[in-house]
Amino acid sequence: MALDIALILIDRIGVYVFAISGGILAVRKDMDLLGVIVLAFLPAIGGGTLRDLILDQPVFWLSDSTTLLVALAGGLTAFLGHRVLELFRPLRWADAVGMAVFAVTGAAKALSLGHGLLIVLIMGAMTASAGGLLRDVVANEEPLILKKGEVYATAALLGAGVYYGAVALQLAPDMELLAGIAAGFALRAAGIVFGLSLPRSPF
Amino acid sequence: MALDIALILIDRIGVYVFAISGGILAVRKDMDLLGVIVLAFLPAIGGGTLRDLILDQPVFWLSDSTTLLVALAGGLTAFLGHRVLELFRPLRWADAVGMAVFAVTGAAKALSLGHGLLIVLIMGAMTASAGGLLRDVVANEEPLILKKGEVYATAALLGAGVYYGAVALQLAPDMELLAGIAAGFALRAAGIVFGLSLPRSPF
Amino acid sequence: MALDIALILIDRIGVYVFAISGGILAVRKDMDLLGVIVLAFLPAIGGGTLRDLILDQPVFWLSDSTTLLVALAGGLTAFLGHRVLELFRPLRWADAVGMAVFAVTGAAKALSLGHGLLIVLIMGAMTASAGGLLRDVVANEEPLILKKGEVYATAALLGAGVYYGAVALQLAPDMELLAGIAAGFALRAAGIVFGLSLPRSPF
Repeated sequence: MALDIALILIDRIGVYVFAISGGILAVRKDMDLLGVIVLAFLPAIGGGTLRDLILDQPVFWLSDSTTLLVALAGGLTAFLGHRVLELFRPLRWADAVGMAVFAVTGAAKALSLGHGLLIVLIMGAMTASAGGLLRDVVANEEPLILKKGEVYATAALLGAGVYYGAVALQLAPDMELLAGIAAGFALRAAGIVFGLSLPRSPF
Repeated sequence: MALDIALILIDRIGVYVFAISGGILAVRKDMDLLGVIVLAFLPAIGGGTLRDLILDQPVFWLSDSTTLLVALAGGLTAFLGHRVLELFRPLRWADAVGMAVFAVTGAAKALSLGHGLLIVLIMGAMTASAGGLLRDVVANEEPLILKKGEVYATAALLGAGVYYGAVALQLAPDMELLAGIAAGFALRAAGIVFGLSLPRSPF
Repeated sequence: MALDIALILIDRIGVYVFAISGGILAVRKDMDLLGVIVLAFLPAIGGGTLRDLILDQPVFWLSDSTTLLVALAGGLTAFLGHRVLELFRPLRWADAVGMAVFAVTGAAKALSLGHGLLIVLIMGAMTASAGGLLRDVVANEEPLILKKGEVYATAALLGAGVYYGAVALQLAPDMELLAGIAAGFALRAAGIVFGLSLPRSPF
């Protein structure tokens, strides 16, 4: 099915771009080559790893070397090209697409195991953003996603929620996935373009 | 049984108060609404999650939405009311009760799986305090529990140990739980009132 | 078999020395006695714990109290003797031996489950170095291994890789383990003696 192939392709791009985000942070923190690769792996596979551990599923990358190799490529790209990459605005958009796909595939995995809305939302958001959190924690940085989220994890929650609603409405499977991805991406895009952010405590 | 209901109620209060501790830290670190909620979840469910992963048990909150909703309520309470809450001394006492209950329920879970004293102690202390450690690590703060513990994790160890001893003495099940909770709470209370703390290295 | 006993002995020494590294950091960060013990456990058992969780194996220390007691002893040693220990250069060499053994035992565990080279390398490096990373993350320090690695995790990768190659060549089991350990140790030793380090991004 064409959507299957498209989803896999988008997922690979997401892994690659997430890995670059970790690699760039590592270069900025003056880490060595292996540090850059470790910090590339964290955002690329960390969220899905945590999801699989909590859902008691086989950790996905144990049987998916392509993901590992793509994450490795992302780390090497950052090591060699971080100066160019930091100027490269399209990266944010590739990241936004990857985030939306991760949120929906995480939500779909939870749903396929029979979990309800609350767990589906948590697993969608966790798959999309826990890896970025791990990246910041290991690099001893303030966690970006929690501070100036620009509706990042919020967009992941929306994508997971719209996917859940689409399944409840029994749309065609393709439409269910696309609806979730489109919703998550649209909110994130609005966050980037209009500088949307969630409120801080007003008190 | 009346104790069952009392324990569940105290456990919910513990989750709520732990969540507030995370939410307040998030507000202090200027995080947005979702950051406050994520940081509320970490102390509320982090310790039990780690315990269940290591003991190879189903993660408890996958089938307990009430805990998730109570943690969410704790985060929102902190978001809206942190100024009032920070002045509110009774919070420390509710936290102490929650800690003592978490330590004993964690110890009881390990014991029910046939583990010995050492693992029972570790799981009691982990259930009660690993979530608070995660909260500080993710917020990029010095880990409070390890620095000025005021016999916090120590009290959890004592509660788990007294529970283990009570089971070995074959007290009535109610008495076993109560003995552990009372011991853990009493030591923590002494820590708060008298400013007890564990020694630092004298050298 | 004599090598079995030698390996267990070296593994215990590795656990003890890794625990000391965590305990010394905790004393430097002015943590209390329990903080010192917690920070001793992280490098001593953290890498193997993460490996077992990801490989979906029983966490090794649940049925190995000796490891826990050795880690506890390492923490207490650091608490009482950190001033002497910090002057004690042989510690680095004991740590290097422990690292090489951890890398090969981690690799062997992954291989025995039928995993391929990539997973074997990751599990070797993870067993040897994820605990030290956890230690630094929890203590809110810059992650040493990623910054001035002195070919630390690199040596673990080499040891795991040589072990994998030796198994592929169907050497005697003793030789397979020894070859991996020797290779990992030799590279780490060269790193210490000649101050080798991996390149940083040149751009």
